[in-house]
Amino acid sequence: MGPGEGATPEQNIVAFELGKAIAQEGWVTLTGGRSFGVMDAAMKGACDANGLTIGILPTETTKGASENAQIRIVTGMNSGRNYMAVLSSDVVVVLGMAAGTASEVALAIKANKKIILLNQDDVTVRFFKNIGTYKILVANNIDETISHIKEYLSVNRN
Amino acid sequence: MGPGEGATPEQNIVAFELGKAIAQEGWVTLTGGRSFGVMDAAMKGACDANGLTIGILPTETTKGASENAQIRIVTGMNSGRNYMAVLSSDVVVVLGMAAGTASEVALAIKANKKIILLNQDDVTVRFFKNIGTYKILVANNIDETISHIKEYLSVNRN
Amino acid sequence: MGPGEGATPEQNIVAFELGKAIAQEGWVTLTGGRSFGVMDAAMKGACDANGLTIGILPTETTKGASENAQIRIVTGMNSGRNYMAVLSSDVVVVLGMAAGTASEVALAIKANKKIILLNQDDVTVRFFKNIGTYKILVANNIDETISHIKEYLSVNRN
Amino acid sequence: MGPGEGATPEQNIVAFELGKAIAQEGWVTLTGGRSFGVMDAAMKGACDANGLTIGILPTETTKGASENAQIRIVTGMNSGRNYMAVLSSDVVVVLGMAAGTASEVALAIKANKKIILLNQDDVTVRFFKNIGTYKILVANNIDETISHIKEYLSVNRN
Repeated sequence: MGPGEGATPEQNIVAFELGKAIAQEGWVTLTGGRSFGVMDAAMKGACDANGLTIGILPTETTKGASENAQIRIVTGMNSGRNYMAVLSSDVVVVLGMAAGTASEVALAIKANKKIILLNQDDVTVRFFKNIGTYKILVANNIDETISHIKEYLSVNRN
Repeated sequence: MGPGEGATPEQNIVAFELGKAIAQEGWVTLTGGRSFGVMDAAMKGACDANGLTIGILPTETTKGASENAQIRIVTGMNSGRNYMAVLSSDVVVVLGMAAGTASEVALAIKANKKIILLNQDDVTVRFFKNIGTYKILVANNIDETISHIKEYLSVNRN
Repeated sequence: MGPGEGATPEQNIVAFELGKAIAQEGWVTLTGGRSFGVMDAAMKGACDANGLTIGILPTETTKGASENAQIRIVTGMNSGRNYMAVLSSDVVVVLGMAAGTASEVALAIKANKKIILLNQDDVTVRFFKNIGTYKILVANNIDETISHIKEYLSVNRN
Repeated sequence: MGPGEGATPEQNIVAFELGKAIAQEGWVTLTGGRSFGVMDAAMKGACDANGLTIGILPTETTKGASENAQIRIVTGMNSGRNYMAVLSSDVVVVLGMAAGTASEVALAIKANKKIILLNQDDVTVRFFKNIGTYKILVANNIDETISHIKEYLSVNRN
C-alpha cells in the first residue's frame, strides 16, 4: 500500500523491487490497482518476476486499471475499497504515506493484520505504534521486509 | 451466480459442469466464494479443470470460504458484496434463484452487464427481460451458455 | 423505493401522495435521495406534510441530492448504497420497477424486511413471491399500503 | 469521531459536553452510532440539549445501536462504514484516538473535509498535519472547537 499520484520516483523504484521480491517468494501482490504510483510500480515488479497481481479498484469499471493488474476486482466504492484491500491481504506493507495509505494502515490495525512500515519517518512510526502496538513492524529495506513476512507466515500460515 | 444453502442437488451438478466448461475455455470463474451451494460447486468444477477461481466473500475474514476459492477477496460487507461480484464479472451466468441471486441479476442489469439466465422458469425470464431487455439472454444448457459467452466476448473482448 | 429517471408522471404523483401519507402517520421517509423520480417525489410529499426525510446517496458528495432530502447520507458507493437504504428501513414500499429498484426488493427479502409491492404487475408480484414468500405484501393504493404498514408495526414496533 | 470501547472516562465527559455544544448551535451530531464510548457520549450530550443525532452503524441490524442515536443508518459494512460516516459529515471533530478513529481522520483528509483534532497529542497532530496540511485544525477545548466550526461554516455554508 502506498501513494498513487503523490508517489516519489524513489518510492516507485522501491515498490518495483518490492513487487519483484514478493513474486520471487511465490506470494501474490495485491494493491489498489490503479495505473500510477506505488500500486502500479509494485505490480509491474511482480509481473516482471512472473508473479500474480490483484488490483482492488475504486471505480465502477476497469477503466483506469493498471495493465499490470492481472486480476481486477471492481468495487464501485471509491475509497471504501481501501477496507477490502486490507481485509484481503495476509500482510500489509506500507511504502510512502498519503491520506488513503494512512486509512489502510489504520483499517489494517483494526482488522488485526500484521503491518510492515517500510522506509517511514519517525513521526509515522510513532503514531502507528501508539495505536497498533505489536501489529506494527518496521523495515528499512526490502530484505528486512521479506524477512518479516517470512517470519510471520512461518507461524500463521493457514 | 446462484443460491447458497437453498441450491438443489441438480443445480449443484449443473454448476459443477458449468465451472468445468468455463475453465476449459480458459476463463476465470468468479463467485460469492462460500463453501456451499452453486458458488462452491462451480468453483469445484473449475478447479477440476485446472481453472482459476475467485471468491468475493461477504465476511470479514476468510472463515467460511470454499476451499475451491483460490483467490479470496474479503469484503466485510455482507450482501453488499453482491454488487462487487457483479461489477468484477465480464458476463454473469445465473443458475437457480434466491433473494441474493436476484439482487445480483438486478445489479448486473444496472451495471450494463450481459446476463445469461440458465435453466430459469418463465416468470423469472419475463421479469428480468422487462427490466433488462437486450442485456438478458436465455440458455437451457451449458453448451448454449458457453456459446452466448463466446459470441459476447468476440465482440467485447478488451 | 422506485425508479429514478425512468419513473412515469403517474408514479411520481402516487409517490408524492405516499410520502405525504407516511409523514401524516409520523413516520420517516427514506429514499435513494436523488433529485428526480420516485425518490424525489416521495420526499417532496413528506416535506409537504412536515415529515422527516432521509436520502441515502450513491455519490461521494451531496451534489445531485434532492432539496427534499433533509438528512443526506453520503455513501460514495454507487449502487452499493441500495443495500444500506434497505437495511435502514423498517418497511420497504416499492412503486414502479427498474433494475436498481429490483435489487432493493431482492436485498430487502435477503435482509428479512417486510416489502409492500404497490401497483405492480402480475409478473413482478409472482417473481418476488417466489423468492420472498410471506415477506411480500401487495397493495393497489396508498390506503392499503398504510394499512399494511400499521399492521406490521403493531406487531413489530421496537 | 473517537474510540468506542477504548475511550477513557475523561474523553466520554468531553464528548458529552461536545455533543451538547453542537446541539446548542443547532447542528446535527453524527457518529458511529454504537452504545458505548465517545459515540454514545456525544449523542447523549446532543439529546440532552434537544439536538438531532445520527448513528452510522457497522452492523446489519440496529442491534447494539445507542439509544441516543435517533436516526439509525444500518450499513452492514463493518468498518467500511467509517468512510460513509466521514462523507456524510460537514466537519469532523476527533476526540481520543484508536485504529478506527485514525481511519476516519485519514478518509476525511482524502475526502477534503475539515478536521478538528481535539485534545490530541503532539505525535498525532504532526502525523495528520503531514498528510492533511491545511485541512487539519487543532483545538484544546470545546470552545475552540465550536469557534473553528463556526468560522468554517461561515465561509462554506451551502
